Amino acid sequence: MAHTLPPPVPGTHAEPARPAPRHADTLERARQTLRTRAHWSPYSEDPEDPRSYGPGAREAGEAAFRALLGREFALGQPGRDGTVGPAPETGGERSPYGGLLEVSYPHCDPDVLLPAMQAALPAWRDAGPRTRAEVCTEILHRINARSSEFAHAAVHTSGHNFLMAFHAGAVHAQDRGLEAVARALEEQTRMPASALWRKPMGDGRTLSIAKTFTAVPRGISLVIGNSVFPAWNAYPALFASLATGNPVLVKPHPAAVLPLALTVRIAREVLTEAGFPADLVCLAAEHTGEGLARRLAVRPEVRLVDYAGTTAFGTWLEDNARQARVFTSVSAVNSVLVESTGDYRDMLANLAFSVSLYSGQLCTSPQNLLIPREGIGTDEGHRSFAEVVADLGGALAELLDDDARACGILGALLGPAVRDRVERVAAGAAGPVAVPSRAVRDPRHPEAVVRTPAVVTLDADREADRAVLLSEWQGPVVFAVAVDSAAAGVELVARTTRECGALSVGLYSTSPQVEAAMERACAEAGVMLSANLMGDWYISQSAVYSDLHGTGMNPSGNAVYCDPGFVTARFHTVGVRRYGGSI
Amino acid sequence: MAHTLPPPVPGTHAEPARPAPRHADTLERARQTLRTRAHWSPYSEDPEDPRSYGPGAREAGEAAFRALLGREFALGQPGRDGTVGPAPETGGERSPYGGLLEVSYPHCDPDVLLPAMQAALPAWRDAGPRTRAEVCTEILHRINARSSEFAHAAVHTSGHNFLMAFHAGAVHAQDRGLEAVARALEEQTRMPASALWRKPMGDGRTLSIAKTFTAVPRGISLVIGNSVFPAWNAYPALFASLATGNPVLVKPHPAAVLPLALTVRIAREVLTEAGFPADLVCLAAEHTGEGLARRLAVRPEVRLVDYAGTTAFGTWLEDNARQARVFTSVSAVNSVLVESTGDYRDMLANLAFSVSLYSGQLCTSPQNLLIPREGIGTDEGHRSFAEVVADLGGALAELLDDDARACGILGALLGPAVRDRVERVAAGAAGPVAVPSRAVRDPRHPEAVVRTPAVVTLDADREADRAVLLSEWQGPVVFAVAVDSAAAGVELVARTTRECGALSVGLYSTSPQVEAAMERACAEAGVMLSANLMGDWYISQSAVYSDLHGTGMNPSGNAVYCDPGFVTARFHTVGVRRYGGSI
Repeated sequence: MAHTLPPPVPGTHAEPARPAPRHADTLERARQTLRTRAHWSPYSEDPEDPRSYGPGAREAGEAAFRALLGREFALGQPGRDGTVGPAPETGGERSPYGGLLEVSYPHCDPDVLLPAMQAALPAWRDAGPRTRAEVCTEILHRINARSSEFAHAAVHTSGHNFLMAFHAGAVHAQDRGLEAVARALEEQTRMPASALWRKPMGDGRTLSIAKTFTAVPRGISLVIGNSVFPAWNAYPALFASLATGNPVLVKPHPAAVLPLALTVRIAREVLTEAGFPADLVCLAAEHTGEGLARRLAVRPEVRLVDYAGTTAFGTWLEDNARQARVFTSVSAVNSVLVESTGDYRDMLANLAFSVSLYSGQLCTSPQNLLIPREGIGTDEGHRSFAEVVADLGGALAELLDDDARACGILGALLGPAVRDRVERVAAGAAGPVAVPSRAVRDPRHPEAVVRTPAVVTLDADREADRAVLLSEWQGPVVFAVAVDSAAAGVELVARTTRECGALSVGLYSTSPQVEAAMERACAEAGVMLSANLMGDWYISQSAVYSDLHGTGMNPSGNAVYCDPGFVTARFHTVGVRRYGGSI
Repeated sequence: MAHTLPPPVPGTHAEPARPAPRHADTLERARQTLRTRAHWSPYSEDPEDPRSYGPGAREAGEAAFRALLGREFALGQPGRDGTVGPAPETGGERSPYGGLLEVSYPHCDPDVLLPAMQAALPAWRDAGPRTRAEVCTEILHRINARSSEFAHAAVHTSGHNFLMAFHAGAVHAQDRGLEAVARALEEQTRMPASALWRKPMGDGRTLSIAKTFTAVPRGISLVIGNSVFPAWNAYPALFASLATGNPVLVKPHPAAVLPLALTVRIAREVLTEAGFPADLVCLAAEHTGEGLARRLAVRPEVRLVDYAGTTAFGTWLEDNARQARVFTSVSAVNSVLVESTGDYRDMLANLAFSVSLYSGQLCTSPQNLLIPREGIGTDEGHRSFAEVVADLGGALAELLDDDARACGILGALLGPAVRDRVERVAAGAAGPVAVPSRAVRDPRHPEAVVRTPAVVTLDADREADRAVLLSEWQGPVVFAVAVDSAAAGVELVARTTRECGALSVGLYSTSPQVEAAMERACAEAGVMLSANLMGDWYISQSAVYSDLHGTGMNPSGNAVYCDPGFVTARFHTVGVRRYGGSI
């Protein structure tokens, strides 16, 4: 939808140098892919791909990352009134692989920052959806070119292994950002920019009204980052808001500021080059214990809040930030029903990898494996409940016995809460440990805490066990839960989803009846189902442009990456009607 | 998006006789029109059009309406525990044109009704978006065939004159319903029903995942009707919810039950004929003083609430019905800035009609006419503020001096609050009366209270006057407000919209600068602007399929008829992924 507001008058203030539409093809391809849900990405997943990233990109990225350490991170934002970091006690970051980043960030006064962002809005609004999409895509392409640098920043804030950091902390996050930009362009251009409405009157004349329709942003968008996937969880909101005309204030998690600070700096550079105010994107780094998110979220200028994190704070936001539209991505308890399989070994390998990846710290990691207590049918014959658990232990051992390889899958444990949870599980606090967690030594990072998943057996018929499995145990903890039957398993999956929230549900079954029942239960509870995944695709994975992340139906949150509603809530359409005569 | 849940098993329960897709062309045309925003409607605006409604339709409709009076209105709903009406003290309706309708309605126990509606959901959900759209369109077509009957019901509940009742109470409401059905079909089919996702792996193999995407309804939708436009304000929500798979419970306003009771009965008939449970659409008539809307709105089964009425109750719903998504259409104060014109006589005639239609009781009726205190430029030369007010009085006299003609424009005043307001204004409570209201005698309905609009002069620079104009005075009351300049008028329009809410803003100006400033102000405040309307189109009118009704940006409500967000909030999309091998 083209804007219809008066254009800047040449001479009174500088007309921005609009970027040439160099990303039109990329955007069109992304929009097509949103319709087909096929596989596609403009961003290479291979960190060593010389065509995409040039020769020696991984090392160059590491050097660029190292050059950021031990110094002030300049942003040029207005209202600076202090410094965050570099020491941990003043808000500085500590690597899960050991050591301090010693980066310091400007702290800015919201009473200066928010008005500056508000003042930046009109020029960005008047630029229209297509120009905004171009600028946003340029920001993402600039970020993409520095993916290796972003990946190293993700390694040393979120504790990912490098390849996972390159994916979730860089290219897949960029994909989610571009998906939001394409979706925003699509939604904002569904109404025609102008239309001539001609109505035949009873007397033979025709009444004409000339109409225009303009997309108008809501106001300042606050994006509250997390420490697990700061880029992947922030980019959909950041780019959906920015592409629909809203200034974006990014409040990073104190443990993972750097990935979002880099993002904000690149966004400000691109905006400036394109002739727009840099303050359309700002960073709100906070002092230790400042509680800045709470303060910012209830400001009247803030009309959108996006938050990924705990259910407690998500609920607080929904209850208190009533002036804003609040999008949440919060706690999830993901289940897999293992009922039967035609490929036992491949199933075990797939499950072992799924529960091991990033030590089960993904929001889509499976926690509860529901197994009929009478055992399951497989291509290797009947397997009892105990045999399935033992064989899963074997698959985990096979996957993770080599320390170096294990580190490449597990990453480092993030934060004292996860480490404490692992200790309590080892001490039997959740239930009997069938497969103990093993401490892995990361040869390159002796300070990193790396643990293989513990498998604990529970019984769905025991009330105490149900209390355990019906809460979130983020980290390397897997529950093998005995259920009475496939039907009882389906019902428990539905109950878990309804009560605890879930982002991803799995099923292994050769029975069409069980599959149909599970599909119906997942439709009613509102969660994505993955059936009989084998090989190189895992329940915890989400294919950008194809899979919707979340449904908005269960307590895991109301944000869906990236359905139309995630974007349409960020702008409004204002019509103008002009009388064109009756002839 | 086709459903992927298991189909009903023949023999276990009756397979519904799906309606033949006889409305496919109508739906396709409606979807196209939503894209072009051109003029179109399948429903004739002429109550005497024999091609659409048969010969003698108006009289036949009146006879059908008369046949409803003085008896029980049967609906066949479960859980009946009492009777509403026929006497006014037990919830029966009284015509604004005099007399009692003496219709009684079943009262049903929500503890029986809501579970019955919940039980009806799966069959309707599984039918899929296209079948649902067909059934909804058939409901609308059946309603359309009885438009004259609906119009007489609207006359004797809302106090419309017959032609207005035929439009706002019948065909335009049907248009808004069909618009919502077409929009719902469009939104639910944007994701493909199925997709094959094939990703090339590094080793030359290709990973395949077969995906399906299913639209799933939220749950029971509560639609709370009003007395002014029960059909026009209920149909968008009713049909948007129903077409997206949600059962709909209609809670009518006690003063205007009949139009929605007729609607519910026809919907139940069509659903039954199509093989679906009738309880997908139910009526919740209430005992006098029961406060049923409050009780129903906070029920956990109710996941959607639509309300058109007062800001106070709209805010109560938003604060208390937290388990539901709440859509509101509440108070509005609409302004017109009269700055200059190239057609003074036509402007005055257009304004006179706009403020007179249905006695200013439309949610889009203009209330505040802002006029520069120095006067305005016209094709007849300069006109002072006082001359403009006097000439408007002359235009009103010309329009309304004949009682019979006046009754055909003004309708009857609805409710004691409006009548009381008119008395207070006549006594000078709002300010000096420049054009007094005149009592009109309706020759056919001596009991009807019919009043021409009073024009009161106010000064925007006086604080007491600002308090008056910055509140809603629903009814035949118009304020001619002196403003310092065009710029001051633009600013006051923006302030009124931001603080009081507005659905429609008007401008008369020959100045491109003033028009540009007003357009910008309306974009920022979020309200539709109509510039220089003349002849047969009025600021209070809203063209279905073309104009969006509301923007969702100002306090007049968050419901927009019918933007994508009005529909997408009513369903969710659930994906299923099935492993298809790596080859």
